[in-house]
Amino acid sequence: MRSEPLRLAVAPDADAAVVETVREAGAVLVDLADAQALAWTAWTDPAGFPQPLPAGIAWVQLPSAGVERWVEAGIIDRARVWTSAAGVCAAPVAEHALTLLLAGVRALPECLRSTEWARTELLPRTGTLAGAVVGIVGGGSIARALVPSLAALGAEARVVNRGGRPVPGAAETRPIAEIGDFWEAVDHVVVAAPDTSDTRRLVGSAELAAMKPTAWLINVGRGPVVDTEALVRALDSAGIAGAGLDVTDPEPLPAGHPLWGHPRAVVTPHVADAALTLRGFRRRLAENVRRWTAGEDLVGVVDPDRGY
Amino acid sequence: MRSEPLRLAVAPDADAAVVETVREAGAVLVDLADAQALAWTAWTDPAGFPQPLPAGIAWVQLPSAGVERWVEAGIIDRARVWTSAAGVCAAPVAEHALTLLLAGVRALPECLRSTEWARTELLPRTGTLAGAVVGIVGGGSIARALVPSLAALGAEARVVNRGGRPVPGAAETRPIAEIGDFWEAVDHVVVAAPDTSDTRRLVGSAELAAMKPTAWLINVGRGPVVDTEALVRALDSAGIAGAGLDVTDPEPLPAGHPLWGHPRAVVTPHVADAALTLRGFRRRLAENVRRWTAGEDLVGVVDPDRGY
Repeated sequence: MRSEPLRLAVAPDADAAVVETVREAGAVLVDLADAQALAWTAWTDPAGFPQPLPAGIAWVQLPSAGVERWVEAGIIDRARVWTSAAGVCAAPVAEHALTLLLAGVRALPECLRSTEWARTELLPRTGTLAGAVVGIVGGGSIARALVPSLAALGAEARVVNRGGRPVPGAAETRPIAEIGDFWEAVDHVVVAAPDTSDTRRLVGSAELAAMKPTAWLINVGRGPVVDTEALVRALDSAGIAGAGLDVTDPEPLPAGHPLWGHPRAVVTPHVADAALTLRGFRRRLAENVRRWTAGEDLVGVVDPDRGY
Repeated sequence: MRSEPLRLAVAPDADAAVVETVREAGAVLVDLADAQALAWTAWTDPAGFPQPLPAGIAWVQLPSAGVERWVEAGIIDRARVWTSAAGVCAAPVAEHALTLLLAGVRALPECLRSTEWARTELLPRTGTLAGAVVGIVGGGSIARALVPSLAALGAEARVVNRGGRPVPGAAETRPIAEIGDFWEAVDHVVVAAPDTSDTRRLVGSAELAAMKPTAWLINVGRGPVVDTEALVRALDSAGIAGAGLDVTDPEPLPAGHPLWGHPRAVVTPHVADAALTLRGFRRRLAENVRRWTAGEDLVGVVDPDRGY
C-alpha cells in the first residue's frame, strides 16, 4: 500500500462522471504539472495530447481499447507506464460480432429489403451457426467473450492469435505464423484483432479468395486489418457471401463508398461497444487507481513493441 | 419389441429422402389401404388429407411443429395416435429468435438503411442484451433452446407457459393464468408459443401498451398469437421499439401490408427452421418408427384438447 493518494490529472475534458469515479477510487484531482498520472479522455485521436509530458507523469490511462494512433504518433514512450481500455468492452463487442454474423448467416439484409413474402427465394439462403466452424482472428478478450456464445449455438471456434496461447473453449488456437489453411477451413471469419504491423491488411485478396463462397466476414477489431478494396471486389464477384463491418478503412466510411447499400454488406458505424464505452473507461480507470494506490501491477498495460 | 416391421404409407409426396429414412428405420413401405401408419409430407395445410382414414391406421406422423390447421379442420381424432415435429426444430428456431432480437436491440435495420457514417445518431440507439430481462411466451422446446444462448450473453429469461412447469435456466417460469406484470417487467418479449385458444391474440393493445418503449417483440411461434393491427398501431406510435417477426397473421403477409418496409419491423418469411425443416421431420419420423417397432411411447404426441 502506498502511503499517499494518487495525484491524478484528467484531460482534456474533466467529465463529471470521470471525476467522480477518480475521487471514489481514492485519487486526488490535480493539474497536469503536479500530477503523477494522467487520465486522457479524448477518444478519437491523440491531437492535443500534451507533448512532452511533464517528467513527473509515471502513468497514463488512455480511453480506448485500440491505441494504434498513439503508437503511430510516437506518443507512447518507455519513460512511463501506458494503459488502454483493452478488454473492458469485450463482452458488448463480442455480442455485436455475433449479431452481425447471425444477421448475415440468416439473410437479414435480404429480408429487410423484401416487400413481399419471398419464402421460396429466402428459404435456401437461410443458414445456421449450428455445426458451423467460426474462425476468429485475434485471441484477446473479444475472442474469449465470443467463444461461449458460439458454443451455446452449437458452433465451433478456431482462433488465430499472435503466440498461439490457447483461448478457453476454442477447438483450436494457432499462432499467426502457422495460419496455414485457416481461411479455407472455416465457415466464417470474425476479425477481433488490433491494428498492428502484423495484422494490417492481413485479410486481402488471397485470403478472401480462399474463404468459402458461403462465408461471412465480420470485422469488430480494426478497419485496416481488412483490405477494403479487395473486400469490395470479393463482394461484387460473390467470392464470399457477405461482410458485416463495425470498423472500416477508411473510417469513418465516406458517403458514396461502394460498401454503403451494398447488397452483401452490413455496416454499423463503430458502435459495437456503445453500451459500455464511457462506463468501461471509468471502470478501467477506477481499477487502475485502486491498483496504483495498493502498489499492484496495472491492467491493460500497452507494450510499445507489440503496439497494443 | 414387436415381431413385425411397421407397415408405413408416405403421402402425398413419397420424397426419396423420406422413403430412405423410413427404410433405414426398419419400416416397410406400403399403400395407405394396407398401412398401420401414415407419414404425411405436405407442410402447408391439410387440404388433400385422406378422410376418413382407413381404420387400420393406428398412428399418423405430421410434418410440422404446429398442427393448429389439422386441429381446426377436425382431422385429429381420438381413434389413433397423432405425432407432430414439435421440438425437432427448436434449436434453429431459437437461433432465429436470437438473431431478430439482437438485430433489433443493436439497431441493425437503421444501420442497413444508412448511406453515411451516422455514428452520433446510432450510438445512443445501440443497446445490449447484457443485463436485459427477456420474457419468453411459451415454455416448450424453443424456450429451452433459447435460454442458454441468452445466458451466454448475460441476459436473464422469464418464461410464461401453460402450467408453470419450470424451464431449466430461466430465472422464473409462471403459468399463463398468473401472467400479472409480465409485460411491463421484461425488457423484451419473444413469442415461442403454439396457436391455441389460450394464446390466440394474447399479445394485443393492452399488452403492447404495457411493454417498455425500448422493448422489441419477437415472434417465432405462430402469427395469430400477436394481434397484427394492434402491433402496427404500437409500431406507428413508437409504443415499442420494434418487432421482429418470422410468423405473421395473415401469413403469408400480403404485398402492400404496412409491416413491409416499416422502419420498426423486421419480417422474415417463416424461415426460422429453414436449415432443419425436412431433416428434422425425417429425424422425428425415424425416431418414431424405431419406437413403434420397439413398442415404446412415441414422441411429439398431439393432445387434441390442448391443440398441440
